[in-house]
Amino acid sequence: MQGAGGMRLATVRVDGGTAAAVEMEGQLMLLPFEDVGEWLRAGSPEPGLYDGSDRLPLEDADFAPLVTAPGKIVCVGLNYREHILEMGRELPTHPTLFAKFADALVGANDSIVLPPGSDAVDWEAELAVVIGRTVRRATEEEASAAIAGFTVANDISARDFQRRTPEWLQGKTFDATTPLGPFLLTADQAGTAPDLLLECAVDGATKQKSGTADLVFGPVDLIRYISAITTLHPGDVILTGTPGGVGDGRDPKEFLGDGSTVTTSISGIGACRNTCTVR
Amino acid sequence: MQGAGGMRLATVRVDGGTAAAVEMEGQLMLLPFEDVGEWLRAGSPEPGLYDGSDRLPLEDADFAPLVTAPGKIVCVGLNYREHILEMGRELPTHPTLFAKFADALVGANDSIVLPPGSDAVDWEAELAVVIGRTVRRATEEEASAAIAGFTVANDISARDFQRRTPEWLQGKTFDATTPLGPFLLTADQAGTAPDLLLECAVDGATKQKSGTADLVFGPVDLIRYISAITTLHPGDVILTGTPGGVGDGRDPKEFLGDGSTVTTSISGIGACRNTCTVR
Repeated sequence: MQGAGGMRLATVRVDGGTAAAVEMEGQLMLLPFEDVGEWLRAGSPEPGLYDGSDRLPLEDADFAPLVTAPGKIVCVGLNYREHILEMGRELPTHPTLFAKFADALVGANDSIVLPPGSDAVDWEAELAVVIGRTVRRATEEEASAAIAGFTVANDISARDFQRRTPEWLQGKTFDATTPLGPFLLTADQAGTAPDLLLECAVDGATKQKSGTADLVFGPVDLIRYISAITTLHPGDVILTGTPGGVGDGRDPKEFLGDGSTVTTSISGIGACRNTCTVR
Repeated sequence: MQGAGGMRLATVRVDGGTAAAVEMEGQLMLLPFEDVGEWLRAGSPEPGLYDGSDRLPLEDADFAPLVTAPGKIVCVGLNYREHILEMGRELPTHPTLFAKFADALVGANDSIVLPPGSDAVDWEAELAVVIGRTVRRATEEEASAAIAGFTVANDISARDFQRRTPEWLQGKTFDATTPLGPFLLTADQAGTAPDLLLECAVDGATKQKSGTADLVFGPVDLIRYISAITTLHPGDVILTGTPGGVGDGRDPKEFLGDGSTVTTSISGIGACRNTCTVR
């Protein structure tokens, strides 16, 4: 475990299933939970309570989505201050929320399956908040305590489907399009408003780069706002929005194609490296 | 069981939990599944296979949401032909899709909890499709076969929250606002494009009344379209949209208040009768 009681956890594929694991001395020590979601629902028991003999070298890890089946994935649009201001827009008074279904998730090194019929598949690197406690109508203190930690996500978006109708959902929830992982950096290490470097590179070229402290609505604000509407449960995930630099905002526009590699990273958490494929 | 092999199933609260049940001779015969969703995931086994001695008079039933925790609730906007045309709009070329989380569901006679902070809580009576088989990129035949049956829903909407931002989700997914039930009318009885009378009454006054055959995108079309985007699983629910007559479209506008009673019914399926409350 790393400094100040903080640690990094993962969900890895083993023996035809998945298991939660904790990083320890360059290895992953497997825990008796099917994924980080199940570990959180069990109350996040100290990994030191378990045997610890079942270990895996970090480089052999086959990462599943960090939470394999969140009950809720709540996504936030338009949430990076600098990007909103440079677009000449006013800062929003309320977060824009939309959903994504769990079937959209892939692991940190899995393929992204390009949506058939879309010619406009775009990247959106995001800081994801993972919920550790059930909260409803949370106070600031309760919202802070509900943050289990943070991970990396990419809200890959089919812009043509997103804009077919007033609602974005259909461009946002194609199966196997949203990397989530590889690690949960726990809040006791990261704090509740982490200032980390978020980057997205496509085929090695940096496209997005921002500090996560530039969020208009930070993790605690989002949990307070969302939990006023619906209960958040352990394992639920909030995708906090993406900074400038998406392909759709470029001139000329740039989109992902078969074989494109998307690297999404956050300092201190880790990187997702996903190759786009047609299936 | 009723004619042509069709039947009505429900999910009822019993002994601190819930159980699936099938209607039989004016009673509900309990099945060894936690809800209709679990029964569907088990492959919809014939109720006749089970003992059948555990029965409940229909009038004593305490209905839970028909599926207590669907993995997906996909909702459709702008889908009744006559209503779209009378508003002077063109018929849509693609369905407008948005999501709702399972915590929004309530049973057929439960209270609707009015969203705190909303002054514009509206009704939206809807035919709901319940999925019985896993489908991805379904053909017409596969889509038809994936329909387990139909139930009644009311997509109660906080219009002010719905319109705060470009995305409707936050006005659509307040906890304990969406009645779902009381019965699943199976597709072998109802067909795959049922022409049933959908009605919504508030405090006894009829507000919405339409045939469910007036859908622009019917159940099979919707399953084909949605399953091209994301896998549909047994127990998933599609809310197919609402006809004209919502409170927001009236002059003057009408909304629900503390104590309002909303009755949502579909001929041959049943009725949800829910009273609004502040909590």
